[in-house]
Amino acid sequence: MSVIVWWLVTVVLVAVHSASARVVELEWEVEYKFWWPDCKEGIVMAINGQFPGPTIDAVAGDIVIIHLTNKLSTEGVVIHWHGIRQRGTPWADGAAGVTQCPINPGETFTYNFTVDKPGTHFYHGHYGMQRSAGLYGMMIVRSPKEKLRYDGEFNLLLSDWWHQSTHSQELALSSSPMRWIGEPQSLLINGRGQFNCSQAAYLSNEGKRQCTFRKNDQCAPETLRVKPNKVYRLRIASTTALASLNLGVEGHKLEVVEADGNYVKPFTVDDIDIYSGETYSVLLRTHSFPTKKHFISVGVRGRKPNTTQALTVLSYVDAPESSRPTLPPPVTPRWDDYNRSISFSNKFFAAKGYPPPPKKSDEQLYLLNTQNLIDGHTKWAINNVSLSVTATPYIGAIRYGLNSLSYLKSPAKGLVESYDITKPPVNPTTVKSSGIYKFPMGIVVDVILQNANVLKGKISEIHPWHLHGHDFWVLGYGDGKFRPGVDEKKYNLKNPPLRNTVALYPFGWTALRYVTDNPGVWFFHCHIEPHLHMGMGVVFAEGVDRIAKMDIPDEVLGCGLTRKWLMNRGRH
Amino acid sequence: MSVIVWWLVTVVLVAVHSASARVVELEWEVEYKFWWPDCKEGIVMAINGQFPGPTIDAVAGDIVIIHLTNKLSTEGVVIHWHGIRQRGTPWADGAAGVTQCPINPGETFTYNFTVDKPGTHFYHGHYGMQRSAGLYGMMIVRSPKEKLRYDGEFNLLLSDWWHQSTHSQELALSSSPMRWIGEPQSLLINGRGQFNCSQAAYLSNEGKRQCTFRKNDQCAPETLRVKPNKVYRLRIASTTALASLNLGVEGHKLEVVEADGNYVKPFTVDDIDIYSGETYSVLLRTHSFPTKKHFISVGVRGRKPNTTQALTVLSYVDAPESSRPTLPPPVTPRWDDYNRSISFSNKFFAAKGYPPPPKKSDEQLYLLNTQNLIDGHTKWAINNVSLSVTATPYIGAIRYGLNSLSYLKSPAKGLVESYDITKPPVNPTTVKSSGIYKFPMGIVVDVILQNANVLKGKISEIHPWHLHGHDFWVLGYGDGKFRPGVDEKKYNLKNPPLRNTVALYPFGWTALRYVTDNPGVWFFHCHIEPHLHMGMGVVFAEGVDRIAKMDIPDEVLGCGLTRKWLMNRGRH
Repeated sequence: MSVIVWWLVTVVLVAVHSASARVVELEWEVEYKFWWPDCKEGIVMAINGQFPGPTIDAVAGDIVIIHLTNKLSTEGVVIHWHGIRQRGTPWADGAAGVTQCPINPGETFTYNFTVDKPGTHFYHGHYGMQRSAGLYGMMIVRSPKEKLRYDGEFNLLLSDWWHQSTHSQELALSSSPMRWIGEPQSLLINGRGQFNCSQAAYLSNEGKRQCTFRKNDQCAPETLRVKPNKVYRLRIASTTALASLNLGVEGHKLEVVEADGNYVKPFTVDDIDIYSGETYSVLLRTHSFPTKKHFISVGVRGRKPNTTQALTVLSYVDAPESSRPTLPPPVTPRWDDYNRSISFSNKFFAAKGYPPPPKKSDEQLYLLNTQNLIDGHTKWAINNVSLSVTATPYIGAIRYGLNSLSYLKSPAKGLVESYDITKPPVNPTTVKSSGIYKFPMGIVVDVILQNANVLKGKISEIHPWHLHGHDFWVLGYGDGKFRPGVDEKKYNLKNPPLRNTVALYPFGWTALRYVTDNPGVWFFHCHIEPHLHMGMGVVFAEGVDRIAKMDIPDEVLGCGLTRKWLMNRGRH
Repeated sequence: MSVIVWWLVTVVLVAVHSASARVVELEWEVEYKFWWPDCKEGIVMAINGQFPGPTIDAVAGDIVIIHLTNKLSTEGVVIHWHGIRQRGTPWADGAAGVTQCPINPGETFTYNFTVDKPGTHFYHGHYGMQRSAGLYGMMIVRSPKEKLRYDGEFNLLLSDWWHQSTHSQELALSSSPMRWIGEPQSLLINGRGQFNCSQAAYLSNEGKRQCTFRKNDQCAPETLRVKPNKVYRLRIASTTALASLNLGVEGHKLEVVEADGNYVKPFTVDDIDIYSGETYSVLLRTHSFPTKKHFISVGVRGRKPNTTQALTVLSYVDAPESSRPTLPPPVTPRWDDYNRSISFSNKFFAAKGYPPPPKKSDEQLYLLNTQNLIDGHTKWAINNVSLSVTATPYIGAIRYGLNSLSYLKSPAKGLVESYDITKPPVNPTTVKSSGIYKFPMGIVVDVILQNANVLKGKISEIHPWHLHGHDFWVLGYGDGKFRPGVDEKKYNLKNPPLRNTVALYPFGWTALRYVTDNPGVWFFHCHIEPHLHMGMGVVFAEGVDRIAKMDIPDEVLGCGLTRKWLMNRGRH
């Protein structure tokens, strides 16, 4: 009950603020550009000639209008506004095939939505593997009355970069046998990295090559210039295609205050883990020495790394330009120290003022994560269905009642019980389908993500799951197979953090809870780009009948069967 | 008058034949595949897993139905049926943005058209530079009563191949400054070539590397196995992106009998020039020695070559498998011997039985070919307009009377008179636009293509111009600037050949004539893929009001402004 009251309050607050809402209106063009993200030439997907794309800076309650023109030659494009719940505008979520048709070359689509609450967010392509191609940027939504106190802020958008084109990567992953794309060639901080060298080589005896770049090179790191004895907010987002990351600042502690656009109970650490799809704000208190420089490091965790740490420099104002940090960058924790990772995840609690989740759920959905095969093609599957997004956007197919379509059937739900998650699958064959789960409005749903062993060897991987259109409460993490009736008792129902992305750890389970209070069709998927490409996702359709047909812009449905339907309505 | 009678006869004959028409119905899927076209791995656009795509084999009068499914990840696709006039089905011509919207990923579009007369044709992608990516195949339309006599036939589909991806090529060509893609790495015969080596190295002392490939490699050439004392028809098509070619068969003469699907007055030569977009049938008479092998060579002309000759082998039936040709392959004529090229072009006359063209034309259209700049981007322009195909297919924009659109205005026509074609342009700036020229039905149009000097140096290039929806008569070629009132007198009005592709030579002009008898919107463009990408084309709209709106399939118009219009017709 308290939850419903809380949501109502939120809605009312937004409505009140909207009366004075600004409009942030932008014209964007997406095109390919030659670029040197890691000091080697590659091709990026740029927005208005920039890589990463422009930072959106808005205030909670603002209306953001983006006229997105596709200047690509033959490829469609969409942009997903990661972390924005799209209340009342589910067609603006920017997930190709789910909430809209891809925007064709030469065409312009207008995204029009309200950024209803403050937070550190980002945006990115959500069609094929276009995120991997560099279609991303930061999106900051400020609070009109920010509770946090700080003197300055920096954005750190983290990503990973391959020298193989994303088209070639897509093909490699779809081939039979699958060709794995391998670890990234470089990690990028705000789109800047250095391939196969280290800025800190002069401090180590590990035989790494010292990076050489010029000040104005596209790969030259941006220095964070700070004053002594101040507090800085670092807004950090990870849009990596693959890599799970750890970030540390030499000689400085980090106080975590925000996660995925929600305030958390502050806690202080030496470094943070960040998975693809996650965002954090951390407060950094500067020392009193005005002439020092310190390395900020970003390294790989969760997979055996083969990529040099990304580095940038925190420079106190009076440090001579020619000087360099005198101490080595923070060492990234061991990649397979999962206990350390889980321990970090368990430090998160909602900040004061957030009401607790509903005490009980109306429905429990178990999602078994497995690696499978279809005719020799390696796939990921959820409850034995490998997601294949169709040419007709689900929001239209469901709203217009094209229910006869077989692909709108939901997969089976109860597969976990008899499954041995500790071994490769006994029957590895899976099927392609739509992976749609339908929910009525106003119920409380628990989702239990269950990890399992992959096809070969004694291996289970990390999967950061991201839900569109919602924040959810993270109720808990556990090792092994979820035990119904037992593990629920360990749920944190008092002050679990609200997130939109959460890690599922190897051989473990993760439980989350949310309320179906946002009519729409919401993607829920592993945020690792190759995993999604290989089918690792589902779609939650919720209260779709509450969306007024007339409100859905035609352009959103201008492909597949909905296009056919809309074109014919005049003829019937 | 005689022309109109002739066309009527053609139409009637087709109608009669149609009564017994077969239907050739095919299901095709387009997707990328890893492939080894020239013994190095690359990515090709395959159809049903094949590269080149399957050969269509039909009989004149047949109805060809192709259900084309786009299995690409994010790219649209179309296929153009090169040489098919699409009488009565202008929406099936497969030119993206002109006659249809691109087919979106996951969608199926059905091409349905009649192959109304016999000929050697091919098909290829016509969106972005997808032809360069390998989206092509042969299309043979047989005569129910073939007049030519021969004992066997072979198809030779010629193409060129780059190691740089076509996406990267598109970007390079569109960049400022433009990055030229350079000469192809390999020439392919039926999709097979050998990079940086020669099959005939053992016969020469030029220091070329001897090719090594295994019998079943994707790059291993197909041997043409022949019997002694027979006549073989070689059906040759060039779908090169860039290269003008010359083909010869060691020790054998070639009798040219067909060009672009029209019979020509037979003539015998040692080798043939073939430009991109052209097709030929040549008859080859075999000798009486049953154990020999001979090289067939394909080399570059018209541009300074940097690509090894493509070779394949003509093998007499009793030649031991392990034996090799004993004589070197034909030497490709000097690349810049343009007199030899023009002399070859001037050998073409219509075969007996073709009526002459109309004696006079109703309209003369001069098309000045120039190389230009737009904001530092190198472009090609016709009458100072660089073609930019819009997101709305012209066939719909014009048919539905969206005439207010500024892009439907025709460019100026009389620019040649004051232009010095022998020097770089005085004012190199051009504009992007649609390049549409509208013609009423039933008139005779002369098009005079006028070549000119490029942006830098004393250079003018070859441009093979291809017209959709029509054959045209090639009235003549000339050197320098066309002189109205003088050069017309040299036109061949007695027996000019009918073609759909014709070369425009450096610093020269080419004149052609056709009758506007086919309601539709027809692309007319340089068949060099990078040139078209850089704007070298125009569009001829003819009798569009004669197309019944109800006949145009909705899918053809399901993008841009026509999609909007069609979706809204039910609301008004």
